Amino acid sequence: MDMPDRPAWNVFQATCPTRKVLDCISDKWAVLVVGLLMGGTRRFGELRRGIEGVSQKMLTQTLRALERDGIVQRKVFASVPPKVEYTLTPLGHSLSHLVDALRIWAEANVDQVLQSQILYDQAGADAG
Amino acid sequence: MDMPDRPAWNVFQATCPTRKVLDCISDKWAVLVVGLLMGGTRRFGELRRGIEGVSQKMLTQTLRALERDGIVQRKVFASVPPKVEYTLTPLGHSLSHLVDALRIWAEANVDQVLQSQILYDQAGADAG
Repeated sequence: MDMPDRPAWNVFQATCPTRKVLDCISDKWAVLVVGLLMGGTRRFGELRRGIEGVSQKMLTQTLRALERDGIVQRKVFASVPPKVEYTLTPLGHSLSHLVDALRIWAEANVDQVLQSQILYDQAGADAG
Repeated sequence: MDMPDRPAWNVFQATCPTRKVLDCISDKWAVLVVGLLMGGTRRFGELRRGIEGVSQKMLTQTLRALERDGIVQRKVFASVPPKVEYTLTPLGHSLSHLVDALRIWAEANVDQVLQSQILYDQAGADAG
């Protein structure tokens, strides 16, 4: 059956909305944030401490993009000082297993990657 | 059984080698390159035309990082003009299914993401 009203999504096209979705989710900080939130709700400071090397600005940008895409829910409590919590949405949970697979792959294959890097750099040095 | 010689990889640590691996693979251009190469060997120009919006410089950088990590194999043929081909290595094939899952997720959930973006932007506009 034809579905004429349904656009043919194609992530390889620069203007396809799916490209923007991929931009957001295939980003190392997004992968790390979603990975941490798999463990449950986290405050901003907990995320910042949990992801070594992320700047406050980068973490804020990443969380905003994930919230805008409906992957992360932000909840502000009117306490003093104000408390802000981040949680994966159901959509975010469906994504989290995929990005976690990237983390597991990186950990499982880092030996082979490091060995390849040594050979590549040696070949470059030999070639002058 | 303890494995004292084996480092405890932790992608959340800035200096862990797995973080650098994640940097390389959780990148939108890497995801698109690996996605195209799932279809078989491609020349540079074919990749460039296949991934709308990628610049020559960005594609070169992405391919170099993927080659250095042992994910992509680069083969140069001594023809006139020289022909350069890129192919996924066995390691790259093992990764390709994971990054392809991201592409499929983006295409499957883009409707929900777009709807969330509209609500987010409206809330921002309402809040002034």
